[in-house]
Amino acid sequence: MTSDLAVCYDDILDAASRLDGHAIRTPLLEFGPLNERLGKRVLVKFEGAQHTGSFKFRGAFNRISRIEAEAKPRGVIAWSSGNHAQGVAAAARQCGIPATIVMPTDAPKIKLENTKALGAEVVLYDRYTESREEIATNLANKTGAILIPSYDDPYIIAGQGTVGLEIVEQARAVSANIGTVLSNCGGGGLISGVATAIKANIPDAAIYSVEPEGFDSTGRSLGSSDVAGNVPNAKSICDALQSPYPGKMTLPINRTFLAGGLAVSDEEVRFAMRFAFEKMKLVAEPGGAASLAAALSGKVPAHGGDMALIISGANVDPDFYCSVLAG
Amino acid sequence: MTSDLAVCYDDILDAASRLDGHAIRTPLLEFGPLNERLGKRVLVKFEGAQHTGSFKFRGAFNRISRIEAEAKPRGVIAWSSGNHAQGVAAAARQCGIPATIVMPTDAPKIKLENTKALGAEVVLYDRYTESREEIATNLANKTGAILIPSYDDPYIIAGQGTVGLEIVEQARAVSANIGTVLSNCGGGGLISGVATAIKANIPDAAIYSVEPEGFDSTGRSLGSSDVAGNVPNAKSICDALQSPYPGKMTLPINRTFLAGGLAVSDEEVRFAMRFAFEKMKLVAEPGGAASLAAALSGKVPAHGGDMALIISGANVDPDFYCSVLAG
Repeated sequence: MTSDLAVCYDDILDAASRLDGHAIRTPLLEFGPLNERLGKRVLVKFEGAQHTGSFKFRGAFNRISRIEAEAKPRGVIAWSSGNHAQGVAAAARQCGIPATIVMPTDAPKIKLENTKALGAEVVLYDRYTESREEIATNLANKTGAILIPSYDDPYIIAGQGTVGLEIVEQARAVSANIGTVLSNCGGGGLISGVATAIKANIPDAAIYSVEPEGFDSTGRSLGSSDVAGNVPNAKSICDALQSPYPGKMTLPINRTFLAGGLAVSDEEVRFAMRFAFEKMKLVAEPGGAASLAAALSGKVPAHGGDMALIISGANVDPDFYCSVLAG
Repeated sequence: MTSDLAVCYDDILDAASRLDGHAIRTPLLEFGPLNERLGKRVLVKFEGAQHTGSFKFRGAFNRISRIEAEAKPRGVIAWSSGNHAQGVAAAARQCGIPATIVMPTDAPKIKLENTKALGAEVVLYDRYTESREEIATNLANKTGAILIPSYDDPYIIAGQGTVGLEIVEQARAVSANIGTVLSNCGGGGLISGVATAIKANIPDAAIYSVEPEGFDSTGRSLGSSDVAGNVPNAKSICDALQSPYPGKMTLPINRTFLAGGLAVSDEEVRFAMRFAFEKMKLVAEPGGAASLAAALSGKVPAHGGDMALIISGANVDPDFYCSVLAG
C-alpha cells in the first residue's frame, strides 16, 4: 500500500514479531469501580508492567535490535526526561550495545537512577540554559553513536503501535467491542502507532489524544493546517508529556486517524493517580494517568461501544507520589 | 474420589465455572528486576486486580451464589478485618442479598469505607474486649442470616482455589514450568485451595505458606500433630494475616500438600511493598506482600523450575502506604 504516512499497519505487525519474547505482553484490565463511574465497559492497558515501567521499551527495542553488527560498538545515544531513556538503556543492554543518554538535571530521581542501573552513561544538562539536541548531536558526531529519536522514527512509532495491536487482540479475547480509545500524548509516538493499529482493525473507533493543559500542541494542531506549539510558560506535573511540538512524522498520522484531542489539568491527573491507587491498585506516573484523568473527568465525547485507555508509564518518585495520595 | 479432606480438585473446577463471568481472571505477571534478583523466572499472580482488591471475592461468591431463593431475604453475615468483609459485601450485592459485616474498630479505613460503599451494614467491635464470633452469632440467631466463614468452609476454600487453577493455566500459556509456589496464609483458605489445584496438575510442585513472624501458626503446625497457636502478644503490620489459629478444614489440606511454612518480618514486608511499587508498579498491602517478602529475602528453599507467588491483596490506607515508601 502506498501512503504518505511514515508507518503503515504492516510495520506494526513486523514490530510485534520482533518484540515477541523480548517485550512484555502487558495486561488489559477491567475494574468494577471504573466501569460503574463511566457507565460503560472500560479496558485499561497497563504499560507500567512493561520493562522499565513504560511503553518506551517497545519502540526502542524495535529500532535498536535492527542495528547492524559493525555499528554496534559505536553505541546509541538519546535524549529524554526519563522513560525513553530507560527504554533505550534496557533495549541497548539486551542487544549488547553501549548507550549514552542526555537527561535534564531535574528529571525524576527514579528515572535517572534506573537509567544508570541499566548500564547507560547519563549526561546531564540544564533544561533552562542548554540544548539537549546540541549536546546529543555533538556527542554523536564525536563517537559515531546512532541517535535514537523518542518519537520521530518509523521503527519507534511502529514499536509503540504494538500497544494498539495488543489492545485489539486482548479486547477480542474478552468479547469487548472497542468504540473509543484514549492515549496519552507527548510527541505523539505512542498514539500515532496505536491509532494505526486500531484503525486497521476497527475503522469506526474514535481515538483521542490526551495531553496536559498548555502542552496540548497535538490536540490544537489536529483540526488546523498549522502546527501549534505549547502555551508559553505552561507548567504541568506530567514530566513525560512536555514535548515542545508534535512530531513531523507523528502529526500527519494523528491528523489522519484521530477524532480529536483532549487536555487535562494537574488536578484531574492527581485525582486519576489516586483513583488508580485506591480502586485499581496500580501505580501510575502523572503523564501515565492523563487518559484515565480525561475519562474520569467526563471529557470524552459519547460514542457507542466500550472504551480502551492506556496507562502508559508508572515511574514516579515515592515522595511526589505520596504528595498526590495525600490529596 | 473418597477423601478425608474438605475440598477436592473437582470442587475447584466447579467453583471456576461458577465464577466465570463474575470474578476477574487476574493477570499472571513477570518482571525483569524480580527475575534478576532471584536468578530464576518468577510469575506473580496479582489479586489486587480482583473485585474489591483481594482474592476474597472468589470464595465469597462461590458460597453466596449458592444460597437458595427463600433464604436470600434473611441475608448473610460475616466477620473480618477487611478483605473478607469487602468480598462478602460485593458478592452479596451481586446476588441481591443483604450483608452485615462485623469489623474491628481499628480496621484500615479503606477497608471499612469500601465495605460500607458496597452496601453492607457494618457492625463495629473492639478487638481487645469483645468477641466477633459472639456478636455475629447473636445477630445470626436473631435475623436468620447465613454465616459466611472466612476460611473454614468448602465453598470458600474451593473459590479461593481458583487462584491456583488460573496460575496453572496462565503459566502453561507462557511456557513456564512451575516448581515452587508461595502463598500468603492467614486462616489458610487461600493456600489450601491453591495447593489442591496446583498439586492436581503439578504433583512435584513445592508449595510454601508465608505468614508473619509470630503468626506462623500454620507453618508450625505442619510438621506436628499438634495445632500451634500464635506467639503471645505477637504484632505484625499484616492486618490480613492474623488468624488466631489454622482452620479445622484448611490445616489437614495444608498438612497433606505443603512442603513447609515460611515466616517474614515487618521489615521484610515493608521492603517487598517498596519493591512492588518501584519495580513492579503494583500496590500491595502488607499481608498481600508476604510471599514477595519471603522470595526477596531469600527464605525459599531451592527447587528446580520456575516460581509462582501471589500478591493476595492491595487494600492499604494511603498514609500507611506512604510511611512504608518513605522507608
